[in-house]
Amino acid sequence: MKIVLSEDHRLHFPKGELCGGEMVRPFECPERWDYVLGELRSRGFKDTIAPDEIDLELVRKVHDAEFVEFLEQAWTDWHQTGFKGEALPYVIPARRMQQRRPDHIDGRLGYYCMAIDTAITNGTWQAVRSSAACAVTAQRLVADDGHAFALCRPPGHHAARDLYGGYCFLNNAAIAVQAFVEQGAHRVALLDVDFHHGNGSQDIFNQRDDVLFVSLHGRPEDAFPHFSGYADEVGEGAGEGYNINFPLRPGTTGSEWIAALADALKRITDYRPDALVVSLGVDTFCKDPISFFRLESEDFRRYGAHIGRLRLPTLFVMEGGYAVEEIGINTVNVLDGYLDS
Amino acid sequence: MKIVLSEDHRLHFPKGELCGGEMVRPFECPERWDYVLGELRSRGFKDTIAPDEIDLELVRKVHDAEFVEFLEQAWTDWHQTGFKGEALPYVIPARRMQQRRPDHIDGRLGYYCMAIDTAITNGTWQAVRSSAACAVTAQRLVADDGHAFALCRPPGHHAARDLYGGYCFLNNAAIAVQAFVEQGAHRVALLDVDFHHGNGSQDIFNQRDDVLFVSLHGRPEDAFPHFSGYADEVGEGAGEGYNINFPLRPGTTGSEWIAALADALKRITDYRPDALVVSLGVDTFCKDPISFFRLESEDFRRYGAHIGRLRLPTLFVMEGGYAVEEIGINTVNVLDGYLDS
Repeated sequence: MKIVLSEDHRLHFPKGELCGGEMVRPFECPERWDYVLGELRSRGFKDTIAPDEIDLELVRKVHDAEFVEFLEQAWTDWHQTGFKGEALPYVIPARRMQQRRPDHIDGRLGYYCMAIDTAITNGTWQAVRSSAACAVTAQRLVADDGHAFALCRPPGHHAARDLYGGYCFLNNAAIAVQAFVEQGAHRVALLDVDFHHGNGSQDIFNQRDDVLFVSLHGRPEDAFPHFSGYADEVGEGAGEGYNINFPLRPGTTGSEWIAALADALKRITDYRPDALVVSLGVDTFCKDPISFFRLESEDFRRYGAHIGRLRLPTLFVMEGGYAVEEIGINTVNVLDGYLDS
Repeated sequence: MKIVLSEDHRLHFPKGELCGGEMVRPFECPERWDYVLGELRSRGFKDTIAPDEIDLELVRKVHDAEFVEFLEQAWTDWHQTGFKGEALPYVIPARRMQQRRPDHIDGRLGYYCMAIDTAITNGTWQAVRSSAACAVTAQRLVADDGHAFALCRPPGHHAARDLYGGYCFLNNAAIAVQAFVEQGAHRVALLDVDFHHGNGSQDIFNQRDDVLFVSLHGRPEDAFPHFSGYADEVGEGAGEGYNINFPLRPGTTGSEWIAALADALKRITDYRPDALVVSLGVDTFCKDPISFFRLESEDFRRYGAHIGRLRLPTLFVMEGGYAVEEIGINTVNVLDGYLDS
């Protein structure tokens, strides 16, 4: 399996993340990438490829054009106000307030944000572009190879049509899904196995029937992003029935999780997709510091094999996972399980 | 003029406020209160009164009952999770996400929050109760005296029916307005002269015609709270026409501001209210660190006199003002101008 990656991810590493009322070192850190790459190399995945430049026309098919422009411009605008910290919003358009975009950067940050954990820094936009580029370049490899892995950082699945947050800015997996569609796929399945609900992916494809979004995640009552991921979110309009959520309780074990995955895969099979994109977060792991499932490392290999038995052209896109030392083992276990199936 | 105040305000003083991407010492600090009281005393306002206990039944007439319960419980729930910092949300229900209240305190904070500048601490609820109690106790004095001043801290006008933020938790002025209504007032005018739009007050009375809300403030394109305060927000349903916003541009001078106030007072006169509540923020001052109007200290005396010439039973409720050394001078200038009119 070929791996697409870019060192540009290092350009995005905020000093602070708002967590528990304090600014802490971000859980979403560059070492995550290093551990995955290290494990890939040690297990023989040696075919690594640099991405081509991202096509922003493609990006704008799943993201609002003004949102993309905002992401590109935000750090410059913030920096020019004289603020000393990294770019974080502090006021947001809450219930019954105006959904109009203000001029001031403080207001624009709040307008486009769904979580205040995620700072924008000087290097963020370049890292974000390159991360999306990894997903798109890897998507192109699937046609010939049948599979590929985009080692994206920053991740993407929380990024909605016009919202960033949860460490995500552009939705790498959704952009790759769109690339499949542009190349003629009639139906694409997007399977999100990250611990956190892929609210952004759901939002982007919510009214479409050419993309089936299926997510297993910590239930929103208890887990970030808290305001998305209920079972009754089934899509709207043409998309009704093409959004399937499996919210799971705290303490969910590997066996329970894999049983839910079997249901999810059945739904995907029934959909008869031309391709599968997997939003691969490994924060379902029992030792993950910000999650509450109990998967063991071997469970990742098991479920990778389940995905492999779908026999679909498959693109894996890296999402979350914060138990840094095991992130490589668990990620590569999924890929190994897939390849061995 | 009698002054109602409580030392309980000192129980609320977060260590940090999220501003410019950093945790800074809050602009809304206990010294603000000390400076106002010091200036009151030095200018002969010696009649200070402690508040009666707040009647939460009255509070629940303008705030959602579950929101009030949340405010009371939030610190305990936060503390019990083991978080080390002060209680701040980090994820919020953005556009197209669910407006359902999660169980986890992280989610509940985000559900009820409109600005992430405002931490909840161990003493917050008692300070908030006492601040609202000051407004209500002062309201009772107006019947006999014709006027009163509630030296509230924390302030209230950003607190909506079920939202806190912008240093505000319960809407002291709105609760006092409701107290006038409970005592038989047919029409009450709420004039908000704080630099920032009183989004909470607007929200609470948005569908009512027995309360006229009139606000002068920095326009939302440029000023906090950014998502409220446009001129076309005129009230809804029965309240249509009973919400009047005067959004003003950066650099607005004292004369320009007072000209807008004259328009506002004309609208109040036309409404023929039985009583007037003034949300008295003095952050319109030229030296205020987080605002952009240019009022001089003498302008506060001038406009106090304009308000006095309405000859209405009048309750002043303290809101914002962050140029700490002048906050007392400017606040008491308004009261002196009012009394001398």
